[in-house]
Amino acid sequence: MSYLGVAVYHGGKMKLIDRRLRLTELLLRSSITVLALLGIILIVTDTQVKRIFTIEKRAKYTNMKSFVFLVVVNGIVSVYSLLQTLRCVMGSMKGSVLLNKSLALAIFSGDQAMAYMSVAAIAAASESGMIGIRGEEELQWMKVCNMFGKFCHRGAGGVASTILAAVAMVLVSCISAFSLFRLYGVTNQRPSKLAMVK
Amino acid sequence: MSYLGVAVYHGGKMKLIDRRLRLTELLLRSSITVLALLGIILIVTDTQVKRIFTIEKRAKYTNMKSFVFLVVVNGIVSVYSLLQTLRCVMGSMKGSVLLNKSLALAIFSGDQAMAYMSVAAIAAASESGMIGIRGEEELQWMKVCNMFGKFCHRGAGGVASTILAAVAMVLVSCISAFSLFRLYGVTNQRPSKLAMVK
Repeated sequence: MSYLGVAVYHGGKMKLIDRRLRLTELLLRSSITVLALLGIILIVTDTQVKRIFTIEKRAKYTNMKSFVFLVVVNGIVSVYSLLQTLRCVMGSMKGSVLLNKSLALAIFSGDQAMAYMSVAAIAAASESGMIGIRGEEELQWMKVCNMFGKFCHRGAGGVASTILAAVAMVLVSCISAFSLFRLYGVTNQRPSKLAMVK
Repeated sequence: MSYLGVAVYHGGKMKLIDRRLRLTELLLRSSITVLALLGIILIVTDTQVKRIFTIEKRAKYTNMKSFVFLVVVNGIVSVYSLLQTLRCVMGSMKGSVLLNKSLALAIFSGDQAMAYMSVAAIAAASESGMIGIRGEEELQWMKVCNMFGKFCHRGAGGVASTILAAVAMVLVSCISAFSLFRLYGVTNQRPSKLAMVK
């Protein structure tokens, strides 16, 4: 009876882990969709006009290439996450566990690409932001945030929202790595033991 | 005989995969160490002097904060990869497979951190590089690469070397994800089947 007992306990524990993982994945993926969209809205609507005597100067997100890149990446990530959220909802309704290696590999690859792309976009936008705040004196790249404070604050909000989305994306990519690689699981059973069972 | 046959075949196949993975990991980790060090050398020795009439202008990596960040990240990655290479060599000599979940989790977490840090450093340095090459007209951040061409080319070499190291780091982090999560493997055996065997 011991083999059967262990197997049932193991199965029950795995089912509980699977249910929790599915729920966590669903929450994370829907959060990513919302946060990436919020990042887009904050950046795209980010504009400020300053009047210096008769000259009007306007700051907008298209002035910084890295902000345009951030918007594009957030767009891709939000669409991808929305589709993945729908897949998770359908999976939860069916109550099925992902056992298809090709699908698990595709999801893992997609999640990895999204996570690295988000991190790259955040780093590039942060670099532009840091130059905007502190300047690079030796290269004569001047501060702009002392002039366009509102623009910089809203931009920072967009980057912060993307950072939260990226953290969730990294966690999701760990879950998809788990879902893929456990399909290549090693067991503690050895040939000799199996032979004894037989 | 069929159970025993399948088990032996499965074990043999897994051993072959393990051996190949160990070798790939060793090669990747040693390449990362070398490439990250090369990145540091190329960036740190990157300097150019221009004389405009009586004024001497010097470009060096410390003028760009993102290049300093790249050097720091490459330093951390190269030391980490060197230590991991030594661990791989010792593991290969013993011929053992990583079955310790805590150690596998620590290696997975370390690899993930290094991979994301490398990608972030590359993205930040590339953003600075793009501003240096093309400028950001609206923000009055001027091109510097038309003046300091040699400096920019060598800097690009340092970034390229780091990109190769980061690609290898991403692959290594996939291997460590495999090594960790396969320890939580699911098998196709069900309780009922085990009961039948018993």
